[in-house]
Amino acid sequence: MAAHPEKMALDAAQFKGHWQERFEKVQPLHLEVGMGKGQFIIGMAKAHPEINFIGLEIESTVAAIALKKALPEKLPNLQMIRADGAGLETFFTDGSIERIYLNFSDPWPKTRHEKRRLTYKSFLANYQRVLKPGGGLELKTDNMGFFEYSLTSFNNYGLVFDGVWLDLHHAAENEGNVETEYEQRFAALGQPIYKVKAHFKAE
Amino acid sequence: MAAHPEKMALDAAQFKGHWQERFEKVQPLHLEVGMGKGQFIIGMAKAHPEINFIGLEIESTVAAIALKKALPEKLPNLQMIRADGAGLETFFTDGSIERIYLNFSDPWPKTRHEKRRLTYKSFLANYQRVLKPGGGLELKTDNMGFFEYSLTSFNNYGLVFDGVWLDLHHAAENEGNVETEYEQRFAALGQPIYKVKAHFKAE
Ligand SMILES: C[S@@+](CC[C@H](N)C(=O)[O-])C[C@H]1O[C@@H](n2cnc3c(N)ncnc32)[C@H](O)[C@@H]1O
Ligand SMILES: C[S@@+](CC[C@H](N)C(=O)[O-])C[C@H]1O[C@@H](n2cnc3c(N)ncnc32)[C@H](O)[C@@H]1O
Repeated sequence: MAAHPEKMALDAAQFKGHWQERFEKVQPLHLEVGMGKGQFIIGMAKAHPEINFIGLEIESTVAAIALKKALPEKLPNLQMIRADGAGLETFFTDGSIERIYLNFSDPWPKTRHEKRRLTYKSFLANYQRVLKPGGGLELKTDNMGFFEYSLTSFNNYGLVFDGVWLDLHHAAENEGNVETEYEQRFAALGQPIYKVKAHFKAE
Repeated sequence: MAAHPEKMALDAAQFKGHWQERFEKVQPLHLEVGMGKGQFIIGMAKAHPEINFIGLEIESTVAAIALKKALPEKLPNLQMIRADGAGLETFFTDGSIERIYLNFSDPWPKTRHEKRRLTYKSFLANYQRVLKPGGGLELKTDNMGFFEYSLTSFNNYGLVFDGVWLDLHHAAENEGNVETEYEQRFAALGQPIYKVKAHFKAE
């Protein structure tokens, strides 16, 4: 990863306020927290050249795989970060992001691990801060308990739902859906894929 | 039904402000809109003698079946109404109800029938009005599209979620659940039962 500083940021804080300079064009910015091996964010960058995408991943080995997949695609609207999503406000200026994606986030099913869930209120507060006023949040998961929790957490935080899907792959609105690695695997097993799209109130 | 005015109100508006007089004791009041054949509201009245229950049903033939089932139980904390749930504010004083139940409400899947759904915003406004400040709303259904819609409608109206269940019958919190006729039927077919519990902000 150190060999590709133009694509992968290992010290994300150093680019705070300067992310747009790392892209070919200044365009709306979308971020995925926990991109895994990168299939989703690479697919999105290909499908939407009019948007700048950043994929963030905490695990070095996993981020390295994502980077390896991304390099041959030479996408001028895709950047990657190796970092902990808990520190978003140290990497991004307030209001600099248009949309955040959470895909198949680790569910942390035990109640005592609630604070680690990427949809816990402290994470939501960070998303709200780095997002533009009225900015969007999209979550997909196969995990029923995590989805029940996230719907409640989003609602209790004051997020406004744009849509809820309890079986995304059999919904009319599935057109244009870019699948993640986990999504492909679980959908192949016949499990329903859950999705919620929401936005923070502009105030 | 006309033979049992002490149990079944055919002209509900005449009792506005006087419902508590129809029960043995003055106790918190819970209402089910669309009780069908009454299994749920009768079961709840048996299980919770410390609460007064009213079951409301629009269809005379169905309400008559519910009444027939209720009479032999001689429950002093159960009353019934034959009326359209759209007129709640003409039957109940503002803030007079503690909790409202919607069980397996007609889904009205066509978009042009959205206004008929018991979770459409105009219905929610009526529930809010007759409920105490901070009053609760509980919905159970087997219908995925109706549940997706209702979650979004509740959220958009500003209701605060207390809990969401995507497979109630396999959840730990299912203890004490009183099943409705439809619930029994759909659960026997192996379909998941969805539930959301929410409350209006006290302001
Ligand atoms: C279950 S995987 C899903 C990967 C991918 N989004 C998908 O759908 O295929 C969750 C990923 O989130 C990453 N992750 C977990 N916590 C994180 C955090 N705090 N910051 C960034 N990434 C995180 C994990 O390392 C893992 O790669
Ligand atoms: C699908 S059934 C479910 C019955 C019962 N709650 C159960 O779960 O077994 C829906 C019921 O709601 C009643 N209903 C529909 N619209 C209503 C309205 N506006 N006011 C009162 N009842 C209504 C219908 O007549 C029907 O009996």
